[in-house]
This record gives sequence, C-alpha cells and structure tokens, in this order.
Amino acid sequence: MGLDDAIRKPHERLSALLAGEMGEVDTLIRARMTSDYAPRIDQVAAHLVGAGGKRLRPLLTIAAARMCGYDGPYHVYLAATVEFIHTATLLHDDVVDESGQRRGRPTANRLWDNKSSVLVGDYLFARSFQLMVAPGNLQVLDILSNAAAVIAEGEVLQLTAARDLSTTEEIYLKVVRGKTAALFAAATEVGGVIAAMPEEQQRALHTYGDALGVSFQIVDDLLDVSGDAAKTGKNIGDDFRERKLTLPIIKTVAKADAEERAFWTRTIEKGDQREGDLEHALGLMAKHGAIDATRDEALAWANRAKEALTHLPEHEIRGMLHDLADYVVARIS
Amino acid sequence: MGLDDAIRKPHERLSALLAGEMGEVDTLIRARMTSDYAPRIDQVAAHLVGAGGKRLRPLLTIAAARMCGYDGPYHVYLAATVEFIHTATLLHDDVVDESGQRRGRPTANRLWDNKSSVLVGDYLFARSFQLMVAPGNLQVLDILSNAAAVIAEGEVLQLTAARDLSTTEEIYLKVVRGKTAALFAAATEVGGVIAAMPEEQQRALHTYGDALGVSFQIVDDLLDVSGDAAKTGKNIGDDFRERKLTLPIIKTVAKADAEERAFWTRTIEKGDQREGDLEHALGLMAKHGAIDATRDEALAWANRAKEALTHLPEHEIRGMLHDLADYVVARIS
Repeated sequence: MGLDDAIRKPHERLSALLAGEMGEVDTLIRARMTSDYAPRIDQVAAHLVGAGGKRLRPLLTIAAARMCGYDGPYHVYLAATVEFIHTATLLHDDVVDESGQRRGRPTANRLWDNKSSVLVGDYLFARSFQLMVAPGNLQVLDILSNAAAVIAEGEVLQLTAARDLSTTEEIYLKVVRGKTAALFAAATEVGGVIAAMPEEQQRALHTYGDALGVSFQIVDDLLDVSGDAAKTGKNIGDDFRERKLTLPIIKTVAKADAEERAFWTRTIEKGDQREGDLEHALGLMAKHGAIDATRDEALAWANRAKEALTHLPEHEIRGMLHDLADYVVARIS
Repeated sequence: MGLDDAIRKPHERLSALLAGEMGEVDTLIRARMTSDYAPRIDQVAAHLVGAGGKRLRPLLTIAAARMCGYDGPYHVYLAATVEFIHTATLLHDDVVDESGQRRGRPTANRLWDNKSSVLVGDYLFARSFQLMVAPGNLQVLDILSNAAAVIAEGEVLQLTAARDLSTTEEIYLKVVRGKTAALFAAATEVGGVIAAMPEEQQRALHTYGDALGVSFQIVDDLLDVSGDAAKTGKNIGDDFRERKLTLPIIKTVAKADAEERAFWTRTIEKGDQREGDLEHALGLMAKHGAIDATRDEALAWANRAKEALTHLPEHEIRGMLHDLADYVVARIS
C-alpha cells in the first residue's frame, strides 16, 4: 500500500478495490428504478440516485460477500436491495421531517410534492423486495424483511419519543437501530449468508454492521456538543436548539436534580429557549460526566465492531472494515 | 341452501363458510400489527383494523386455497399479508389524497398526523413482507412483491395522469390494476400456488382476481354517471366535479370534436365548471355511446372472471366466487 492509499479514507479504499462490482450495482439500480408507465418515478428516483451518496450500505454487502469468498452474482442484487430500502427511507424521512434540503440539493418533496415522495418511496420499497427474492434464499429474506420492520418501528418511535424527557437509553438505542444500525447489520449479514458462511460468522457480520451503525450515530450526537465546527461541518448546539434527545442529553437528564429537570422541561419539552441556555446545558453535561460517558460508549461500540471482525476470515477487506470502525470514531478520540 | 342464504350477498356467504379461518386471520393480524416499543403503531393500526372493512382480499386468498384443496396453515399467513399490504396502501392513500374520512370515521392522518400515517404504513408494509416469507415459497414471494410494485406504480401513474386529457384506456387500466386488481389477482393466485395447483389453474386464479378487480372499478365509474343514488349511495357527477378521468369520460374525450374538446379542457383540465356542465357532460357521454360501451366492458370483465373459474375444481366455493363476479356488476345490469 502506497502513501496515497494509506491516507485515503477506508470506505474510499474499499470502493476502489470493489469498483467493478459497485459498477454492476449502479447498473442494476438504474435499471430497476425506472417505470415503463410512470415517468414521475424515473424523475424522482434519478434525482436521488444522481445526488451521489456514498453508497456505504451496498459497499458493506459487497465487501462482506467478497471477504467471505463469495463468487456468485447475487451479492450485487442484495447490495441494490439495501440501497433501495435506504433510498425509500430517505424519501419518506424528508416528508416526515418536512425537509427542504438533502446533500446540498432541494429534496424531492420540495421539487415535486409530498405525494410523489410517499408513492415513489413505496415503489422503491416494493422494488427492493423484488430484488431480494432473486437469490432464492429464504434466510436472506428473513433478515431483510426484519430489518425493514425494525427501521419503520424505530422511525415511529422517534416520532413519539421526540422531546419526551422520559426517553431512556433503551429507547434511544431502538431509534438508532432503526435510523442506521439495522440496515448496516442486514447489509453485512446477508453478504455472509449468500456466501454460505457458518452461523458464527454470520452473527459476527451482523454484530459488525450493528455496532458500526450505533457508534456512527453516537459520534454524530457527540459532535453536536463537543465537536470542532471547522472540522466536522456541524455547529455546536444544533441538536439542542432542535430539542433532540441525544445520548449526552439523555444521560444528563437521568442525573438531574429537581431544578435541573425544570431546566430540561422548559428547554426541550416546552421549547422555551433563552440566551445562555445552550451554555448552561453544556455545563450540566460536563458536570454529570455525560460527554465523557458518551465518548466511552462510542468507542466501546467501535471496539465491538472490530472484535466481531476477529471471527471472520483473514482478508485485505477485513483490514479495511477494521479501519472503517476506527475512522468512524476518529473524529472524537 | 335456504332462502336466507340465497339472498345473502356472495361475500357474506363466503365469510360465513370460512368463518373459522377468517378468525385465525384476524388473530394473526392483531398479533402482528403491534409493536413492543412504539405504541403509536398499535393505536394507528387498531384504528384501521377496528374500522371493520369487509376483509375481501384475505377472504379471496382463503377461498382460493380451500377451493384448491389446501389443508396447511399458510393460507392464513398469506391472507394476513394481503390485508397488511392493503392497509398500508390505505394509510398512504389518505395522506396522498388529503382525505379526512374513511368508512365514515376520521382518517389516521386526521386523528394523528401525516407522519404517523406514512411511517405506520411503512411498518405494516414491512410486516407484510415478514408474513409472506413464512410459507417458505419463492413463487409466492415473487407474486406478492410484483403486486406491491404494480400497486405503487399505478398510484404514481394516477398522480400524474390525473386531470390530463391525454390519458388513454391503456393508462386507465394500469391505474385500475394498481388501485385494485393487482392485489385481488395476487390474493387469489397465491392461494392456488401454496395448494401446489398446476400452472394453468394458477393462471386462472390470477385472471379471476384481476378481472374481478377491473370490473369492480369500472362499475364504480359507471355508477357515477348512471347510478341510482338511493341504491348506490353515490351522487351522480361526484367524479366529474372532482375532475376524475373515469372510463366513460376517457371514451367520450376520445371521440370529441374540437368544440367538445374545449369543453373537456375547461371542465376537467382547468377545473372551470359552471351550472349545466354536468348535464352537458352526461349528454356528450350518451351521444358517443360511452355509457353503453363502459357497461359492456364491465360485463365483459365479469364474464372473463367467471370463465376463468371453469378451469378450476368443482367446489361449493367456486359457485360463490362465480356469484361474486355477478354481484359486482348486478348494480349496473
């Protein structure tokens, strides 16, 4: 590995190594996102696919399958499946969050309307199920349909738990699994399943994806209270201002005395925020050790991801997946 | 069959005959529509399931399976699957149509919000895929995932074809398949597939459900221009006022001269409707024979449904399905 490779981000190295198969995934996605009859589907889908996300989820599927020695054609179908589930979720999320921007471009619900986003999301969701049937593997279908249910359940939970101070860390974890970890875990696991790996390795792949996704979301929470805006592109306190119950806040609320609790009730539940409140909130987090505890948790999940990899075959890709877990938490350690 | 039975509606006779299995379907639906973590899911789902639809789609699945001699447990899973797909579609439809009422009660998007309807719909959709995996039959998965795609495609098409005078009968049929016929066809077909019927019978079941659904929708269009409001509960001209391109209107527009075309452009495309326009529209439909032609088409689809049944085993249920096709068109013949 030359110097250029060494300083490239791990997912960029993975993408370069698996460029051929990722090209096949792209071809399949473009072929399946169209409709012979309803041009609106092509327009909306092309808007999202053209926006060029990192394709991290299909990359995880291809990487897992290749690391496990798979040499058939179906990892490409499953990679397209997880990207379709992800894209459908984005379309519906933008409607639910009333978002106007994603990846620096107007959202589909802004460019067309909420109706189109709901229905094209449904179409891509249905397409994802058509694709996942292709390998003819019932275990794969179980894993992906369960992931889809966990995702939707997590989203509904987030809706009702939002701004509710009784939200526990258990509920937080359910929401995070729904938002990110469930699809990461399914993406890696199905790669091992179609490669017919023993159960222990399949479980390890699930654990890796799950732990990677959870650590990613916890880091995101942490950057909002302790990040360097210049490096992360996130402004300190955005989540607080949006009254989101992030992990550092949940940990701080759990240790609040009566007076502190009144502060959180006013700022988060009632949304009555005044000058100096953010600084006070950050002070309370520091006082109760919530920032350190959250950082420890993010690192523990990244370690869990790396530990899971030790159960998997020695492979160049395994090293890159290891580096990816490190990369996710590098911004906070 | 006594007199009471003879005058009962065919789907009520089917429900009575299959009451035991429909009870199992109800139990399974209630068990699977819940969530351990997100009570909003239970509330929204219970609102819909409690509203007591006719459960016609699961009834078709149970009927088809039993008519084909199936005696395993999985028709109940597939019946619950089609009802979940249907319920998810209703939740999203109400958001898309901005409806406030369904079956005489406030819609979920009115009682809670659009977000809950979108996300609980996604949850039920995911649940439907978990259920359809249960029988372990890949052909069933193909049929149901294809139906889900046709449904979503039809809905998007309806969105863009609405109020567009260039809508052809071909597009109309695509929309109708999405709205109704695709799920009816899948519901009946999977009953034959898990009963391991030969391909010809599977195809006949598909044709029956498809033709039943198409005739049902055409009759619905027809009642809007020629029904007896006292009997049908539909007011003449509602579709015209809502600027819907029903089959009689599509047929009339196809034969319009320049002056008539200007009338349709003003009333349907531009929505500028004045006193006397409905009467003029009905006059144009009569002039071009569109009402008779539409009635003929509804009857032809009902006949196609009944013809398909002749390829299926002699059975008490077959007679009821035959009567059901007659019943659908009885209101117009």
